[in-house]
Amino acid sequence: MPEGSIHTHELAASKCLPSLSDAVAATGLKDGATISFHHHLRNGDAVINTVVNMLAEAGLRDLHLAVTSLFPVHAPLVEHIRSGVIGRISASFISGPVGEAISRGALAEPVTLRSHGGRARAIDTGEMPIDVAFVAAPAADELGNLSGRTGRAPCGTLGYPMVDVERAAHVVAVTDTLVPFPAQPIDIPQNKVDFVAVIPSIGDPGGIASGATNPATDALSLGIARNTAAVIAASGLLEDGFAFQTGAGGISLATAAAVGREMRARGIVGSFACGGITGFHVEMLEAGLFRALMDVQCFDLAAVASYSRNANHMAMSAAAYAGPHIGGAVVDRLSAVVLGAAEVDLDFNVNVTTRAGGVLIGGSGGHADAAQGARLTLITTRLTAAGFPKIVPHVTTLTTPGRSVDVVVTEAGLAINPARRDLSDRLAKAGLPILTIEDLAAKAQAAATKSVPPRVQGRIVAHSEYRDGTIIDDIHCVDEV
Amino acid sequence: MPEGSIHTHELAASKCLPSLSDAVAATGLKDGATISFHHHLRNGDAVINTVVNMLAEAGLRDLHLAVTSLFPVHAPLVEHIRSGVIGRISASFISGPVGEAISRGALAEPVTLRSHGGRARAIDTGEMPIDVAFVAAPAADELGNLSGRTGRAPCGTLGYPMVDVERAAHVVAVTDTLVPFPAQPIDIPQNKVDFVAVIPSIGDPGGIASGATNPATDALSLGIARNTAAVIAASGLLEDGFAFQTGAGGISLATAAAVGREMRARGIVGSFACGGITGFHVEMLEAGLFRALMDVQCFDLAAVASYSRNANHMAMSAAAYAGPHIGGAVVDRLSAVVLGAAEVDLDFNVNVTTRAGGVLIGGSGGHADAAQGARLTLITTRLTAAGFPKIVPHVTTLTTPGRSVDVVVTEAGLAINPARRDLSDRLAKAGLPILTIEDLAAKAQAAATKSVPPRVQGRIVAHSEYRDGTIIDDIHCVDEV
Repeated sequence: MPEGSIHTHELAASKCLPSLSDAVAATGLKDGATISFHHHLRNGDAVINTVVNMLAEAGLRDLHLAVTSLFPVHAPLVEHIRSGVIGRISASFISGPVGEAISRGALAEPVTLRSHGGRARAIDTGEMPIDVAFVAAPAADELGNLSGRTGRAPCGTLGYPMVDVERAAHVVAVTDTLVPFPAQPIDIPQNKVDFVAVIPSIGDPGGIASGATNPATDALSLGIARNTAAVIAASGLLEDGFAFQTGAGGISLATAAAVGREMRARGIVGSFACGGITGFHVEMLEAGLFRALMDVQCFDLAAVASYSRNANHMAMSAAAYAGPHIGGAVVDRLSAVVLGAAEVDLDFNVNVTTRAGGVLIGGSGGHADAAQGARLTLITTRLTAAGFPKIVPHVTTLTTPGRSVDVVVTEAGLAINPARRDLSDRLAKAGLPILTIEDLAAKAQAAATKSVPPRVQGRIVAHSEYRDGTIIDDIHCVDEV
Repeated sequence: MPEGSIHTHELAASKCLPSLSDAVAATGLKDGATISFHHHLRNGDAVINTVVNMLAEAGLRDLHLAVTSLFPVHAPLVEHIRSGVIGRISASFISGPVGEAISRGALAEPVTLRSHGGRARAIDTGEMPIDVAFVAAPAADELGNLSGRTGRAPCGTLGYPMVDVERAAHVVAVTDTLVPFPAQPIDIPQNKVDFVAVIPSIGDPGGIASGATNPATDALSLGIARNTAAVIAASGLLEDGFAFQTGAGGISLATAAAVGREMRARGIVGSFACGGITGFHVEMLEAGLFRALMDVQCFDLAAVASYSRNANHMAMSAAAYAGPHIGGAVVDRLSAVVLGAAEVDLDFNVNVTTRAGGVLIGGSGGHADAAQGARLTLITTRLTAAGFPKIVPHVTTLTTPGRSVDVVVTEAGLAINPARRDLSDRLAKAGLPILTIEDLAAKAQAAATKSVPPRVQGRIVAHSEYRDGTIIDDIHCVDEV
């Protein structure tokens, strides 16, 4: 209803426009504009492809795609990159065909890769202004209240777009489930949303759980998990108020299981677990091992269900989770974090951005954020992958600096960052299999069947930004097209 | 933790400063600055007095006090007005000694009175920049997560400061209950708060329920309530999806009770009830009469408890509730609202700002917002109060324009705004006691024992702003000091 209008005695004008293209037209989107998207639907997302297809049909060019993450499902974007509809990309994680295409030079302008916290900082500070934020909404009402907890593809919290909707010049909610006012429960409120567009499907809820969300069961993984948990147990940090983040991979969850057993044995109640949340974390909450879950993104439907029913399972925005600009983020209260690696080098630097050979396969996500914030940062990794050594002299791409990394745990033993002499003493007393990082690198080299290819020297196709916006590495073109 | 700092292996620096004055010093507050406060603790609030006392001791002058509401408990502010510590006031509602002092000319500069939605608009659009928002927080953790649902003075939702914290240059949370990280459940997240100050008491939770929050039981009130409910029943709006706002006064709640009985009899499920929420509204939610409560402010502890346990009892910000600038607020989806009046005039204009004689006793709060938004706006009032007529030729102060008012219900019958001919037909068919507004004014005049004093002509002490920022009336000095 326009300001100062007379009493209409009618329902307020709806924000729901007849079509997605009407909604886009209403925003006045132009060539070269920055459009943002979130990845809560992960490899099940249909919204990015649908919107970019529509923009391509509308003749828009040179758009800046400011996404949180891209997955294999976003393969159709490669064609829009080649045709010039997409002229620039900023992201926190890019896997699948789009990463491959970027690595092969499909985009003239280098991609900017930021951590989740770095992206929130760039948006909040105005470094990356957003013209239109498109928010995939599992349910929405006509005035733009959005719920992640209901609808046909419920994804739970909407922690990533919570940042975008506060700063974007225009916000378009894209849903396949228009519900009567008010949507409930509300995850993003109506005053943050300008337009609502209904499309046939926002995606496949089965795609949310795109990685493993069960603890590993193979002996090698369990060995790594057992040692990782033992490091935490011996670190002096496993006491009441313990705060923990793990990934959703098998080793991470097996580590969490072992830590949980130790917490139970010691009668410890942790404060919170955070990050991407799985049903496994929900079980730990419900078992009383943690007081709260801080959830930027649900990784499976068990987490979605818990978030819907349990007030101690709390949503957080990417800014609150990991922002380096807010005077203290959730990651800054972590006791311990367990993270993975594509490569670790002799300075404890970690690469989760490119695979051996330099092709873009990921990016920081929350890796650099949690690593810097946590009091104890553990990297779990096998010695080799696909025949390549994973403990190497120099990482191919720097994602997380070694100064944020305390311990690297492999199946052959663990290495402690020399800067953590205090930790060395504790872990030695606990009888853990401590080696040097050079030992691990040698073992990895011995176990490998292939050599790491030399760093490629093509033109720069992406910048790896640290949380604070400094460029800490570049990704080079592997094979110019 | 500063950006780009090295991995500290220590807990993040707390936002909790040793004292309130340290927190204020950290904001760099200067003479003439705008400081904002909310009124969720209503007549139990101790935070405004505590902060302003401290600022006075620190020697600050000419501050702009941008509050949502002031109550009798804020009487000590009068001295700070007289001494020049407070130089300007903006508010949505002012009752008690501060209103009296303003009316007698204590402030040189006119007060700006805005509706709840108008205040949110002024903040969101930058019309009223806030230097420091002080947020009374029933519980807070060291990183600034705030909970309204726990602590010693729980007030429930924090719908008003939700607006302030998004725009203020600095945000200081003031709490008497510092809890371990993370506070839970979180009502305002840590990324919106800069500093946390702990004081001995934020107030008396008994003061939250400062008005009646039970249905009236006297015959006269019940008569008005019965007729008001009958108007709603006959209006054609009482069907599935019915959305309803009432105040928390006895007549309003008795009306809600009668409407509830009718809904039950017809088997109707409403969409939502909104506004300040009481235990009475909670009973209606739990009885299945409404799908949801949209709660900008809990009016009693039963509402606080419901908000804590029921996901369908949802918080909303003042912007979402009533903002005229967001393309459709919650009030714009109201089927019917029942509001009170200090005076109603022959043009259906309503005054809830001054009492007979012109002294400031209130202000719009959400009155003008809900009246404009709702499809059916009902004003309930007795014919007289304290011997003065309440239906008068011209309101002393215009708060809500008559074009937003549909029906005025008194104990002597009801009057329908002539612009609502459709409604006249329906209500006449229902056999309701329909009079003209002139009839009601004559009856009020006959029942009154005192005459309305002539409008005072002293200098302007306050402006009454409409939702959109236009000044629709002035309040004049009643007795220069």
